[in-house]
Amino acid sequence: MLKDFLIAPGPTAVPSEVLIEMSRPIYHHRTPRFSQLFMETIELLKYLYQTKQDVFILASSGTGAMETAVVNTLSPGDSVLVVRSGKFGERWGEICEAYNVSPAYIDVEWGEAVDPKRIEDHLKEHPDVKAVFTQYTETSTGVTHDIKKISDIVSKTNALMIVDAITGLGVTKCPVDEWKLDVVICGSQKSLMLPPGLGFLSFSEKAWKANESSTLPRFYFNLKAEKKAQSNKTTAWTPAVSLIIGLHKALQMIKDEGIEEVIKRHKIIADAIRAGVGALGLELFAKSPANSVTSIKVPEGIDGLQIPKLMRDKYGIAIAGGQAQAKGKIFRIGHLGYIDKSDVAVVFQSLEFTLRELNYTFEWGSSSKAVQEVLYPEYKKLDIRKA
Amino acid sequence: MLKDFLIAPGPTAVPSEVLIEMSRPIYHHRTPRFSQLFMETIELLKYLYQTKQDVFILASSGTGAMETAVVNTLSPGDSVLVVRSGKFGERWGEICEAYNVSPAYIDVEWGEAVDPKRIEDHLKEHPDVKAVFTQYTETSTGVTHDIKKISDIVSKTNALMIVDAITGLGVTKCPVDEWKLDVVICGSQKSLMLPPGLGFLSFSEKAWKANESSTLPRFYFNLKAEKKAQSNKTTAWTPAVSLIIGLHKALQMIKDEGIEEVIKRHKIIADAIRAGVGALGLELFAKSPANSVTSIKVPEGIDGLQIPKLMRDKYGIAIAGGQAQAKGKIFRIGHLGYIDKSDVAVVFQSLEFTLRELNYTFEWGSSSKAVQEVLYPEYKKLDIRKA
Repeated sequence: MLKDFLIAPGPTAVPSEVLIEMSRPIYHHRTPRFSQLFMETIELLKYLYQTKQDVFILASSGTGAMETAVVNTLSPGDSVLVVRSGKFGERWGEICEAYNVSPAYIDVEWGEAVDPKRIEDHLKEHPDVKAVFTQYTETSTGVTHDIKKISDIVSKTNALMIVDAITGLGVTKCPVDEWKLDVVICGSQKSLMLPPGLGFLSFSEKAWKANESSTLPRFYFNLKAEKKAQSNKTTAWTPAVSLIIGLHKALQMIKDEGIEEVIKRHKIIADAIRAGVGALGLELFAKSPANSVTSIKVPEGIDGLQIPKLMRDKYGIAIAGGQAQAKGKIFRIGHLGYIDKSDVAVVFQSLEFTLRELNYTFEWGSSSKAVQEVLYPEYKKLDIRKA
Repeated sequence: MLKDFLIAPGPTAVPSEVLIEMSRPIYHHRTPRFSQLFMETIELLKYLYQTKQDVFILASSGTGAMETAVVNTLSPGDSVLVVRSGKFGERWGEICEAYNVSPAYIDVEWGEAVDPKRIEDHLKEHPDVKAVFTQYTETSTGVTHDIKKISDIVSKTNALMIVDAITGLGVTKCPVDEWKLDVVICGSQKSLMLPPGLGFLSFSEKAWKANESSTLPRFYFNLKAEKKAQSNKTTAWTPAVSLIIGLHKALQMIKDEGIEEVIKRHKIIADAIRAGVGALGLELFAKSPANSVTSIKVPEGIDGLQIPKLMRDKYGIAIAGGQAQAKGKIFRIGHLGYIDKSDVAVVFQSLEFTLRELNYTFEWGSSSKAVQEVLYPEYKKLDIRKA
C-alpha cells in the first residue's frame, strides 16, 4: 500500500473541499442559479487577478486561453515579439505562426530569465510591434521572468503586454491593473487547485482597443461574444459547470486565506524546497527560480529519466522530468496550489530514497534538516488555530 | 492554509476509495442486494480474523462489542480474571462489574506487559474462572501483550480467552483459530480505515458453549439473535448500511494487499516511528511497544499537554495525549490503518517544530535521518508498480 501524491507543476492536488462541491448533482447552466454562481466566480477571479477589468472563464486548457489572447488582439502579418525561454515560450510562437502573425523571437538560454533590456531595445527598433508575449514563470525550466520590469517597458509603448501566468498567478505577486498587464493567462490545474479543463484570461482596455482592429479568425474563442454573454450573466458556449462550481469554492478558499498570504505561503514552501535541494548537494537549474516549480539538475552519472520514474512508480510521488531539450537533464518538483509544509516532508523523504537507489551520495535526512531550518521560523510565528 | 492529518491511535484516516463507496446513494437493508454485500463482508471479516468460526458486525463502538462479549458468555456472580494494564483493561472490569460478574484483577504497571505466568498461577489457584479478559495492545499505554502465550495457557483450561484487539487486529499477527482465541473484539475506526460506528467480534465454539448457560440480560447485543439473522443473510437490528458498504471496500483492500503484507507494513512503519523517537532523544513509555501506537514519555521540564495541543492546533497533526494517570506524562502517535511512509515524514516534521517550540533540544532533521535508515532497506526491496 502506497499513498499517491501529486507534487508536479500541474496538475496539482485538489482539496476535498473542492471535490465535494464538484460532486454535488449537476444543474443546468441557463438558470438563475448558475448565473449567480457564475457572476460571483467572475468577481472572485477579479480578486485573484487584482483587476477591475474584464476576466473570462473558458472551457479549455491553458493553451486555449493562450490562443484566445492571440486571435482576439492581432491580425495576419502583425509584428509581435515572443520571449522564448522554454517550451511554453515556444508555444506562444507556434500559436502566432499558426495564425500568420509574424513573431520576432528573443531566445533565452533554458534556465535563464530574459533580460528586460533586450525587450526594450527590440521595441525601440521596432515600434510597430503589436504585442509582447512572455511567460511569468516558464514551467519547463522553473524560471521567473521580471514581469513588472518588462511591463514597465511595454506599457509605455503601443504594444500589448501578454503574459502566460499559468504557473505564476496565485503563486507570485501579479497585480494585473497595478502592473498594467494587458492579457494574463491562467489554467485551472495549477494554483487554482482544480482538475484541468478551465482556461482564464484578463483583458485590459488597451486589449479591447486592439480587439477592434483585430481580424484573425475566431469562433469558439471569441471574447466579444463572451463579453456580451457575461453582461447577460452567462457564457457564450456551454460552460464546464462542475469545474466552475469547483472554481467558485477554490477561489473562495484563496480569498479566505488572502492573496498576500497565499503568495507568502508559496514563497516559504519554495524556499524550503530550494534549501532541501541544496542540502542534498543538488544544483538548481533556474537562475531566477520560480516559487511554483523547482527545476533541479540531474547529478553527474545518474540516469535523469529514472528520477521521476522511481519517484512515481516505486514511491508514489508524481514529480516531473525535463521536457524537450531538458529531458533527462533536469527534474522538477511542483509546489503550487494546495500545498503546505507536509508536502515538503513527503517529497524529500522519497527523493532521498530515489537518489540513494540511484547511487547518489548524501547523508540521510540532510534535506529535512535544511527544510526544518527554513520552515520553523515561519511556522513558529503562526497563531494557534481555534480548535 | 494547513493540511490536517489524523495520526492518532483511532480514529484513523479513511482512504478516498472507502469514502467514495460510502458516498453512493443509500439502499434498503432488507434486500437481496444488501444480503449479498453483508455475507461477502462477513467472509472478508473472517479472512481478517483468520477464522472459520462466527464473526459479527454490530452497529456500536468497540465498547459495545466488549459488552457483547461479556453478556453473551457469563452469568451473575461468575468469576473472571481481568488484566488491568491501562484504561481499556479497566473498561473490561467496569463492564463485568456493571453486570455483577466477579472480576479478579491482575494489575500491571502502566507501560508494562502482563507476565503470562501471573495468569497461569491465578487459573491454577482458581479453576472456577470462566473467562480471562485482556487487551492485545493496550491503546492507552502503547503496550502489546503476548496474546499467543496467554492463550496457550487459557485454552488449556475451561476459561474463555476474550481479547480486546481493537488496535491489534489488522496490525499485528492475530490468527484467531490457530491461537484458540475465543472472543476477539475490534472496531471500525482503527486498522479498518473506517469512521467510528461498527464493532466486531469473533465467537468460538467454546464461547457458544458458554453462551448456552449464560444468563446475563441482553437484548440489543444478543448474539443468538445475530447468528439466527446471519443464517438468513442479514442482521438482527438495522445495520449501519453505509459503514458496512465502506467495510466491504476496506476489507477488500486489506485482502488485496494481503494480511501478511498489512502486518509487515505496520511493523516497518512502527519501527521507523520508534527509530525517529529515539533519534530525538525521547524515551518510549511502553516496555513491549505495539505496532499500532507509540507512546512516548514527555521529556523532563516540558508541559506534556502542550505537545498534542500544538501538534493539532498549530501544525494540523492530530496525535493523542496520555489518558487518566498518564495525562501530561506521555503522548501517543497512532500508526495503524491507512498509513504509509509519508505519514512518518509528516508527523516527525511537525513533532520537531513542536518540541523546538517547547524548548526541547535536538538537531533538526535527526528524526528523519533515523527514519530513512529504517525505511530505505524495506522500500528498496519493493517492486516498481505497473504505471
